[in-house]
Amino acid sequence: MPIFTLQELSEKLNESFEGDGAIQIKGVAPIDSAREGELSFVANPKYVSLISACKASALIAPKDLDTNFRPLIRSANPYLTFTKALTLFHESARRISGGFHPASVLGENIRFGKDVTVMAHAIVEDNAVIGDRTILYPGVFVGRGAVIGEDVTLYPNVAIYPECSIGDRSILHAGCRIGSETESPAPCKSRPVELENDIELGANVAASGAPEAPTRIGEGTKIDNLVQIAAGARIGPHCIIVSQVAIGGFAVLEERVTIAGQVVISPGVTVGARSRIGAKSVVMENVPPDSDYWGIPAQPIHQEMRLKANINRLPKIFDRIRSLEESASES
Amino acid sequence: MPIFTLQELSEKLNESFEGDGAIQIKGVAPIDSAREGELSFVANPKYVSLISACKASALIAPKDLDTNFRPLIRSANPYLTFTKALTLFHESARRISGGFHPASVLGENIRFGKDVTVMAHAIVEDNAVIGDRTILYPGVFVGRGAVIGEDVTLYPNVAIYPECSIGDRSILHAGCRIGSETESPAPCKSRPVELENDIELGANVAASGAPEAPTRIGEGTKIDNLVQIAAGARIGPHCIIVSQVAIGGFAVLEERVTIAGQVVISPGVTVGARSRIGAKSVVMENVPPDSDYWGIPAQPIHQEMRLKANINRLPKIFDRIRSLEESASES
Amino acid sequence: MPIFTLQELSEKLNESFEGDGAIQIKGVAPIDSAREGELSFVANPKYVSLISACKASALIAPKDLDTNFRPLIRSANPYLTFTKALTLFHESARRISGGFHPASVLGENIRFGKDVTVMAHAIVEDNAVIGDRTILYPGVFVGRGAVIGEDVTLYPNVAIYPECSIGDRSILHAGCRIGSETESPAPCKSRPVELENDIELGANVAASGAPEAPTRIGEGTKIDNLVQIAAGARIGPHCIIVSQVAIGGFAVLEERVTIAGQVVISPGVTVGARSRIGAKSVVMENVPPDSDYWGIPAQPIHQEMRLKANINRLPKIFDRIRSLEESASES
Repeated sequence: MPIFTLQELSEKLNESFEGDGAIQIKGVAPIDSAREGELSFVANPKYVSLISACKASALIAPKDLDTNFRPLIRSANPYLTFTKALTLFHESARRISGGFHPASVLGENIRFGKDVTVMAHAIVEDNAVIGDRTILYPGVFVGRGAVIGEDVTLYPNVAIYPECSIGDRSILHAGCRIGSETESPAPCKSRPVELENDIELGANVAASGAPEAPTRIGEGTKIDNLVQIAAGARIGPHCIIVSQVAIGGFAVLEERVTIAGQVVISPGVTVGARSRIGAKSVVMENVPPDSDYWGIPAQPIHQEMRLKANINRLPKIFDRIRSLEESASES
Repeated sequence: MPIFTLQELSEKLNESFEGDGAIQIKGVAPIDSAREGELSFVANPKYVSLISACKASALIAPKDLDTNFRPLIRSANPYLTFTKALTLFHESARRISGGFHPASVLGENIRFGKDVTVMAHAIVEDNAVIGDRTILYPGVFVGRGAVIGEDVTLYPNVAIYPECSIGDRSILHAGCRIGSETESPAPCKSRPVELENDIELGANVAASGAPEAPTRIGEGTKIDNLVQIAAGARIGPHCIIVSQVAIGGFAVLEERVTIAGQVVISPGVTVGARSRIGAKSVVMENVPPDSDYWGIPAQPIHQEMRLKANINRLPKIFDRIRSLEESASES
Repeated sequence: MPIFTLQELSEKLNESFEGDGAIQIKGVAPIDSAREGELSFVANPKYVSLISACKASALIAPKDLDTNFRPLIRSANPYLTFTKALTLFHESARRISGGFHPASVLGENIRFGKDVTVMAHAIVEDNAVIGDRTILYPGVFVGRGAVIGEDVTLYPNVAIYPECSIGDRSILHAGCRIGSETESPAPCKSRPVELENDIELGANVAASGAPEAPTRIGEGTKIDNLVQIAAGARIGPHCIIVSQVAIGGFAVLEERVTIAGQVVISPGVTVGARSRIGAKSVVMENVPPDSDYWGIPAQPIHQEMRLKANINRLPKIFDRIRSLEESASES
């Protein structure tokens, strides 16, 4: 496992820190089992009481948490930041010995980089490109003409449809399906699905795409399990998409957008840079940059919170109207 | 790629058209990159301004859009119609050279049609039937006694459980799981899951079924990525089901139903013919034919819209009650 | 297929029964096709009229259904109970002949139990453990150091990441991904994902986990298709989780919790023992034991029902306020 200083971590996580940035962190752990040298997190108020007994060398904490614990990494979403940190500590541990398993199947005219690993029952079709040090786990399918970058890991049964491309250092977990609408009869000018560098996709993610409706995912974007991305979607760099979200066809996420679990982004809608969408929302109209939206349909979060508060005040409203009516009938 | 006249397309898409039906269409593309001879679409009001500069030979447009552009295909959901058109132009491009890869594994007593393609690591178990010109991509699993029609494409890692059946010309994208509850000890009278002809399933769709709770999907139905279909569901012909929908056990969709993204159809509920359900709804009671429903729980869409409008008027209600109370206390 | 008395079934299903417990049940079927000797169910009021003509030997019915039909198994959720019964009748039918297919790939230092079946293109990596009578279907991947119990069935393309463990008699349907965040450089003290005994996972379920964020699923838990389980979640014994649910990181479900379709359990939240969460809810705060919750955010179900009733009364409120205002202006 790698070792980072707190300052290095803060930069990689793109969050500010408080306290000694030179402290060395060599792993991550939950708050009740973390040990010296490890980074932990507190997201839920009910765990705040565990901070005093916490043995971690640093904590990821909400921006507004009042605590003397130092050093801290401050985050608007400590849990998401923790999962990003988890990935950082694992990345350099995933190297395995290279080579081509005799039970893999390779087409013609493939360009392989150095130190590629192709495990048993992986298949690479004609004219594909596989970059240096990339690993194909068992049962991976790379369609004809697809381009896979350097230091990429494709876990078991990932399927890359023909002509799609995957950027350097990306990690696709088991069962991801990339380009499931594509079927071009000839090499494309436009790749049906193009993933830039340093992207991570969770298990069983499905990203459709076609030459007429190309799908783009920008560098550094992290996507959780079972997310759906429709043909023509464009997702900016450094976005975070939590599990089971659906990004509609030709929808646009600008840079550093965060989408919580099970959100629907409707076809053709744009979510502005750095905006955050709350769990289970349906985004039906464009969202400006730097906004927090929530609801069905999604609206600015303070409006949605007020709306929910207003609904909860309804029973009292009925009482007040009844008493007004009674006074009116008495007078 | 095939070439269709606009009139042919309008019939295949089951939508009306305006203008010259004899014009030839040879492909599809988004509005800002479409060229002569191509079909495009406009769904979102923000793209209406692009129509004047659009080079497409025909457009799919909302039924109520006021535009001079001709010819037009009118659709209640231009984006869905576009994705259907996309499929039409790809279908005839997906033929590849036939044959049995030496690394495929075949059981006993299988009936193979003519010109079947079985790629590496595909497996066909005993007593299965595979129709003419059908293609099994790498890692496909066809369980014992399953019946696959003619001109079917099963993409990588599709799993067809024993005794299930797939109709002619159907396309199942990577990772579809058909019949995941089935396990009958003997050949069934009732197939656990039966897909009729001309069905398309997106990536990682899961359709459960069992001899006691058989699941049926009617011809021409298109189902998007990551949809869940529970055992016993019956889905009519020519339905459209958008991504991540859940169809409950023994639920019924009659013909030409459209279900938008992430909807739940509760177990045992019936959705009437040609009805449409809005994104993220939970359908808890039967829906009559030819209805538009939306909400949690789903209700007629004009009621749901009025309900949402009423909620947004709540803050004013509070003001009006307060002022009534003030006048009452003054008087 | 096995035969159970009604009393045995009632115990295995953990639901009470009324009538003759000695009656023998040898299968299950829907209410309109059930025959003598079979168990059926009625969940939806519209099917109550079919009870009089039903030929089943026993019915699963809602707790409050007024019917003379006997014997009955009473259940708060007859459909869920029916699907559990379906599983019971299938379990003993799934045995197939053992052996290692020559196209399977086995690593070094694996401990195999007796009568193990490893089908074509299944892969078991170094140091894994596979228990007696366990079946690996085609394309299954068992990572290094993983531990699979006895009488386990892993359907096609299941991927078990390194060091994860699966308990005895568990069934994982096609495309399940277990441990998709894990990558430990060395054998772990803490298994990234640990499934206890008698667990069933539907198709394409994704359960993440890592040594620092271990995920636990308790014995007897049944999980439907396409469910997402984040790293660090702890799920109690005997829970039922319907399709497309998302369990957030470090969330806790205590024993016998039931979660309906497409619910989100937010990271770090605890759902108390025996509680039930309605379809499409977002659980944002802890839920006490023995509670019924529903809504976005989830709240006690009677509050949510009242809230929805109040919203539907809003149009009348507007009328009443208007008439109060009119009387006020007149006076």
